Amino acid sequence: MKFKILHSDNGTKARTGVLETDHGRIPTPIFMPVGTAGTVKGVHQADLKNEVRSPIILGNTYHLFLRPGVEVIGGAGGIHGFMNWEGAVLTDSGGYQVFSLAQQRKLGPEGAVFRSHIDGTRHTFTPENVVDIQRIIGADVTMAFDECTPWPCEFEYARDSMELTHAWLDRGRKRYLETDPLYGYSQSWFPIVQGSTYPDLRKQSAEKIAEAGMDGNAIGGLSVGEPEELMYEMIDVVNEVLPVDKPRYLMGVGTPANILESVSRGVDMFDCVMPTRNGRNGQLFTREGIINIKNEKWKSDYSAIDPDGDSYADQQYSKAYLRHLIVSGEILGPQLASLHNLRFYLWLMEETRKMIEEGKFAAWKNEIMEKLSIRL
Amino acid sequence: MKFKILHSDNGTKARTGVLETDHGRIPTPIFMPVGTAGTVKGVHQADLKNEVRSPIILGNTYHLFLRPGVEVIGGAGGIHGFMNWEGAVLTDSGGYQVFSLAQQRKLGPEGAVFRSHIDGTRHTFTPENVVDIQRIIGADVTMAFDECTPWPCEFEYARDSMELTHAWLDRGRKRYLETDPLYGYSQSWFPIVQGSTYPDLRKQSAEKIAEAGMDGNAIGGLSVGEPEELMYEMIDVVNEVLPVDKPRYLMGVGTPANILESVSRGVDMFDCVMPTRNGRNGQLFTREGIINIKNEKWKSDYSAIDPDGDSYADQQYSKAYLRHLIVSGEILGPQLASLHNLRFYLWLMEETRKMIEEGKFAAWKNEIMEKLSIRL
Repeated sequence: MKFKILHSDNGTKARTGVLETDHGRIPTPIFMPVGTAGTVKGVHQADLKNEVRSPIILGNTYHLFLRPGVEVIGGAGGIHGFMNWEGAVLTDSGGYQVFSLAQQRKLGPEGAVFRSHIDGTRHTFTPENVVDIQRIIGADVTMAFDECTPWPCEFEYARDSMELTHAWLDRGRKRYLETDPLYGYSQSWFPIVQGSTYPDLRKQSAEKIAEAGMDGNAIGGLSVGEPEELMYEMIDVVNEVLPVDKPRYLMGVGTPANILESVSRGVDMFDCVMPTRNGRNGQLFTREGIINIKNEKWKSDYSAIDPDGDSYADQQYSKAYLRHLIVSGEILGPQLASLHNLRFYLWLMEETRKMIEEGKFAAWKNEIMEKLSIRL
Repeated sequence: MKFKILHSDNGTKARTGVLETDHGRIPTPIFMPVGTAGTVKGVHQADLKNEVRSPIILGNTYHLFLRPGVEVIGGAGGIHGFMNWEGAVLTDSGGYQVFSLAQQRKLGPEGAVFRSHIDGTRHTFTPENVVDIQRIIGADVTMAFDECTPWPCEFEYARDSMELTHAWLDRGRKRYLETDPLYGYSQSWFPIVQGSTYPDLRKQSAEKIAEAGMDGNAIGGLSVGEPEELMYEMIDVVNEVLPVDKPRYLMGVGTPANILESVSRGVDMFDCVMPTRNGRNGQLFTREGIINIKNEKWKSDYSAIDPDGDSYADQQYSKAYLRHLIVSGEILGPQLASLHNLRFYLWLMEETRKMIEEGKFAAWKNEIMEKLSIRL
């Protein structure tokens, strides 16, 4: 995997770049739709490609490991063939899910023992087998196994947890370097910065992660409940240390405003369930502000879902119709809302890249962030 | 609306024809996907048109009246504009739903008073206002308000109910003839044969319905739990009486085998929730038989969902992937299964028409019906 910076903004730390994978070139900054279990909920693969125009999507190791299981994905020759997706895939390591979703989890230096939230079966994740599992899943970008600390978090816990994540990093890195991709295309492996909201720990963790010298680096453990300003402060601390010439992936973030602020702080890659999850509940992100389509005010609004949008969901259906679908619990509602929101996020990244290239990013960001937060 | 018989089968009563509406020509025999609340569950309108290749879909007066309501649909200039569907639409009258779904229903000569199953609000349907509502919804084919008798049903109840349906027919017909379409395209109105499984009543009802001299005629109250043979017997009795040169619509039927048997008895139009509802639960209809995709046997079957199918769902995804989606409760599962099943039903009707035209219908029907019932 190669990463090349194309343009660096003058006024901010924002930059554009391109990440080359064997499943396509990914322009950065980029937002990656979340396809937890091998599907971006409610969105057909062809629409992800042609309407959302997403070059990369996310999968989740924890979910895919439990269901359908590595044998099934391996039998299909990896996640791309299994789900019929020609673009790139990044798999999260499952660290976050083990600590947020799994039952009866027991954490030790060796790894994490947990019970499946689906059927209660007992499993073990180690830094090594999480590499092996991701080799079988076959994502283009794989992630180190980490502990994602909750917020708030005592300093001692955050420090010990970070040290565990660092020890796991060394073991995972070793396994990654000792093993090869299984399907003839290359894979990369990103370590993850932790350290909660303690600047000292974050700095220390970023130094450890930078030292690993991998193809890209991730920032984890943010957007877990802490105030936004603390998140931005941590990003600044970390990005001071992480190498400029490697892609930086801020995990699980966030709102359009969060993303733009983080881009201005030098982040290149994002993922979040917000466009799909909130979309399913009727929240639409638009250039003019946020729409709660369930509101009575949209009941007889026959204007297009997003007159400025360029997916078919935006142009071909009215707000009144989408409201009816969402209020009635009709499947097509989540389908259209997810498609719209994902396209909006990808459009926002396209605009972001354009504005950075044209040297207008900082001014544009302040202008659009104000709009994006309006409740229509 | 014009109906023209194109070809009549020699060995059976099957025939091909074409139903001309202001929203397109509908070749018959035809299956109409059910879009109860203004959406065929899980299927995008573009896919209905281009993949399923459906010239007509169903809507339901009861559901659309309650939600989004006639004001909203009227404000959009009718159901076609509201849901962005250029093809034809048929709306059921709501009779069936009032008697199967609504709460605290009270039936009198005047009509039916009921409470909404959604919010308990009180409403009245009469033969007249059901015409008015369907004028506002704006379907190409509208239906008379009837009482759909359950099965089994005492003779006296069936007779009284039929007489009520007949009285309602006269009143609905009068209102239909006194009123005009609202949106510049024509609408037709079909009366409905009732009479439970009593041949005498069915004959009497068919005579009454035939006398009305409308553009088409429907057979209701079947496929409500009675043995298949009784259903076929009733269809034979009714079709002896209903005019040959008008389309015959068998409401709510059915399995692929039910449809083929009914075509051979002279039925032209069908609708059923089976392809979508059963699809959402993982039942797939194919040329080789019925698949329960949840079965363990499909877990690692990487063959196409339906190698002989011609929708993108059939060719681009594997059985293993669809199984994973359905088992995991992922929205894309119902989306793909519904698309496949609907396309299968429409394909079956295309083949049916072709076989009738080529004089091979009877032999082909017996051959394919055997296959279609196999559990794979």
